[in-house]
Amino acid sequence: MKPYGELTKDEARVELSAAREAFDALKAKQLKLNMARGKPGKAQLDLVSDILTVLTTPEQCVSDGIDARNYGELSGLPAAKKLFAEILGVKPEQCFIGGAASLTLMYDTIAKAYTHGLLHSPRPWCKEETVKWLCPSPGYDRHFKITESFGFELVTIAMTPEGPDMDAVEEAIRDPAVKGMWNVPKYSNPDGIVYSEAVIDRIAKMKPAAPDFLLMWDNAYCIHEFEGDYVPFPDILSLCAKYGNADMVFEYASTSKVTFPGAGISVMATSEANLAYMEKLMGIQMISYDKVNQLRHVLYLKDKANTLALMKKHAAVLGPKFRMVLDTLDREIAPRGIATWQRPTGGYFVSVNTEPGLAKRTLALCKEAGVTMTGAGATYPYGVDPNDSNIRIAPSLPPVEELRAAMEVFCLALRIAALEKRA
Amino acid sequence: MKPYGELTKDEARVELSAAREAFDALKAKQLKLNMARGKPGKAQLDLVSDILTVLTTPEQCVSDGIDARNYGELSGLPAAKKLFAEILGVKPEQCFIGGAASLTLMYDTIAKAYTHGLLHSPRPWCKEETVKWLCPSPGYDRHFKITESFGFELVTIAMTPEGPDMDAVEEAIRDPAVKGMWNVPKYSNPDGIVYSEAVIDRIAKMKPAAPDFLLMWDNAYCIHEFEGDYVPFPDILSLCAKYGNADMVFEYASTSKVTFPGAGISVMATSEANLAYMEKLMGIQMISYDKVNQLRHVLYLKDKANTLALMKKHAAVLGPKFRMVLDTLDREIAPRGIATWQRPTGGYFVSVNTEPGLAKRTLALCKEAGVTMTGAGATYPYGVDPNDSNIRIAPSLPPVEELRAAMEVFCLALRIAALEKRA
Repeated sequence: MKPYGELTKDEARVELSAAREAFDALKAKQLKLNMARGKPGKAQLDLVSDILTVLTTPEQCVSDGIDARNYGELSGLPAAKKLFAEILGVKPEQCFIGGAASLTLMYDTIAKAYTHGLLHSPRPWCKEETVKWLCPSPGYDRHFKITESFGFELVTIAMTPEGPDMDAVEEAIRDPAVKGMWNVPKYSNPDGIVYSEAVIDRIAKMKPAAPDFLLMWDNAYCIHEFEGDYVPFPDILSLCAKYGNADMVFEYASTSKVTFPGAGISVMATSEANLAYMEKLMGIQMISYDKVNQLRHVLYLKDKANTLALMKKHAAVLGPKFRMVLDTLDREIAPRGIATWQRPTGGYFVSVNTEPGLAKRTLALCKEAGVTMTGAGATYPYGVDPNDSNIRIAPSLPPVEELRAAMEVFCLALRIAALEKRA
Repeated sequence: MKPYGELTKDEARVELSAAREAFDALKAKQLKLNMARGKPGKAQLDLVSDILTVLTTPEQCVSDGIDARNYGELSGLPAAKKLFAEILGVKPEQCFIGGAASLTLMYDTIAKAYTHGLLHSPRPWCKEETVKWLCPSPGYDRHFKITESFGFELVTIAMTPEGPDMDAVEEAIRDPAVKGMWNVPKYSNPDGIVYSEAVIDRIAKMKPAAPDFLLMWDNAYCIHEFEGDYVPFPDILSLCAKYGNADMVFEYASTSKVTFPGAGISVMATSEANLAYMEKLMGIQMISYDKVNQLRHVLYLKDKANTLALMKKHAAVLGPKFRMVLDTLDREIAPRGIATWQRPTGGYFVSVNTEPGLAKRTLALCKEAGVTMTGAGATYPYGVDPNDSNIRIAPSLPPVEELRAAMEVFCLALRIAALEKRA
C-alpha cells in the first residue's frame, strides 16, 4: 500500500475508481449512522439506571438536616459539594451545584460578566467597546458559540500536543480587551490532549492586562479515562491562588457522562470571593437547582473511589469503540499518509487532521452514505477551519458493529477526497 | 371592643399597656416561627412523595420514542408539554419545559432581552438609554428584584381588587421606554387578587409604544385554590393573539407547589414565533432541562383532572392554615379598624394593609418575639412601601398550632404599633 503522496496520476485514478466502487456498494446499504456528538450509547445509560431507585422515601430526602424536597440552599446540598470537591480536588465551599448541564453554568457565568460584570470588572462587559476571547483550536464548538453569541471577537490559539500555544497566549493577554479563554484541560475536545504540567503552570501564573480575565476551565472529562487507570490532575484553583490569581478561574464539571446526560448534575468551582459575588446575582435568578436529583447522585455515586469504579464500567463499553476507530484509521489511513491524529486515552473524541482542503469534501461524502458527523469547521471559531482539515469523530453512540460500518464509510470518503485532488 | 380610631389618648394608653403585657408573655416563650415565604410545609411534601417511585426502570424512560436519559430535546419532552398545555389551556407547541423554578425561565427571558433583544426588539436592551418597567404593587419581591437587577426603572402601578389600575397602565405604555410589565394574574402575590375578565381583556389589547413590550404573565397559582373548586381562567396567549399581540406575552407556571418545590419542573408558554426565536438563543445556553424529571412528573401528574385532584389534597392541608390567619385577623384586628385585607381563595399569601406607617414597626416587634415575616416594603419596587403599610403573611410552612401562636404575636404587634401612635 503506497502513501498517496507517492502515487502517479494514473495510479491515483485507478485507486479512486476502486474506492468509488467500494463506496457505492456501502451507499447502497442505505446506512443511517451517527458519529456527530459525544452522546453516550444505550448500554451506558442502562449501566447507570439504578440511580432511578436509590432515593424512594421521604426520610431519605433529608441530607445534613436539609429537606431536599423544599425550597432553599441556592448553592446546592453540602453532600453534593463534598462529592464534587473530592473528585476535582477543590474545597466544598468553592462549589456551586448546577443542573443537567455544566454548559448552562458556563453560559451563565459569561452572561453575568456581560450584564453585571465579574468581581473585578471595572464595568459590565456589555459596556465595553470590544471584548476579545482566546479559543485554543481545534476546540469545542459549543464553547465557541457561547462567546460568539455575546459578540466577542474570537482569537484562535493553536493547540499543541501539550495544550494551547502559551507563547501566543502570553502575547495575546497583554491586550486588556482580551477578557478570557476557553479550556478543556484534560482529554481536550476534540483532540483528547491532556495539558502538560508546564502548560498548566504557565496558565495559572498568567498576568493578563484585563483585571477581570476569565479563565474558563471546563474539566468535562476529569474522570473519563477509557483506557487505563484514572490519571490524577492538578487542581487549577489552588494553583491559580498560589500565583495570586485566585479569582481568575472558574472550573466546571458534570455527571453528564457519568450518570444520565439528560438528568445529571453539574458543578462550578471557583474562589470563595467569586462565589459570594456570583451568588448575589444568581440568587435573583433562581431558588436552587434540583436538590432531590443532587441527593440521588450523592446516594448513587457515594464518593470518588466509587465513582471511579463506575467509570471503569463506562470504559469497558467505550474502550472497544475507540479501539475500533483507531484500528481502522491505523489500517486504512495511516499507510496512505493523508491524515494524522492523536491517540487519546480518555474523553469522547478522536480528532483527525487531514491534508489541507479535505474535511468538507470528506464529510459531504459521509453524508451521502448516511453517516452523520460533526460539521466541518465546527471545531474552529466561527465554524471556519482555515485549513479545512479537522474532523471530529464521536464514537460513543453507535454500537461497535455500526461503528465498524461508519468508520468504513469515513475512511473511504477520506480516501476519495484525497484521491480526487490527485487524479 | 372599640375601633382604635375612637379611643381617647388615655384609653389608648391603657390598651397599649395591656397589649404590651400580653406581648411580653409571648416573647418569654422564645418562639421561632416563620411566615416569611410561600414555602410548603412537610405535610405537603409527604403528600406527593410517591413521585420518587413512579419511574424506576430503563424501559419507562422512553417517552414518545425519546430516551429521556440521553441528551437532546431542548424544549422538553412532548408529554410534558402536553401536560402543561392542558393545564394552562395553551397549545403544546407553545411550551418550553424548564427546571425546578419558573423564576429562572423568567429571569432568562429578561436576560435575553437585555443581551440579545426579543423577536421585535430594534436592539438589545443593554443598548437602550433607559428601560422602564411596570410593577403592579403590592407585588412579588422576586419579580421586582429581577428587573431592578438589570437597572430598569421600576414604575409602581396601583393594584385594585380587579387587577392593575389599567388607566395608569394605558397611560404609561405610551412611553416607548416602557418595555414590560409584571403580572401574577390569578391569586396575585401577595393580595390573592384574581384579575377580572375586563382587566385581562384590556391587557391583551394594549398597544404599547415599545415594539418589543414584554407582558410577563406569571401564572404561578393557576391551579392553586385552597377553598372551593378550580376556577377556570382565560388563556392569555390566544387572547393576545386575537388582538394582534401574539408575540407580546410570555406565560410561566411550575410544579413548585404541586410536587416538590426543590425538584419540580416549569414551563414557559409563548407564541411559536417567540419560541423559535428564543430556542435559537437557548440552544447555546443548554442542551435541555432534566428530562427524566419531566417524565417523572408526566407519570405522576398524568393530566389536568388528576392534577386538580392532587391540588384538592394540598387544599386540605392549606385551607385550615389560611382560615386560621383570616379568623384571627377577623377577631383581633377587624373590630379595631387598624388594617384591611383581601380574602383570597387561592395562592399562598394573605396581604394585610395597615394604617399608614405601621408595617416596619409591626414587623420589628414580630422579630423581637421570634416570628420571621417577609421584610416590610418587600412587596414594592426597590423594597420601599410609600405608605409603610403592606405586610405579606405566608401561612403555608408552619403547622396550624405554630401558626396560631405566630398570628397571636402578629396581631399583638400590629395593635401595639397602632397604639404607640395614639398613646
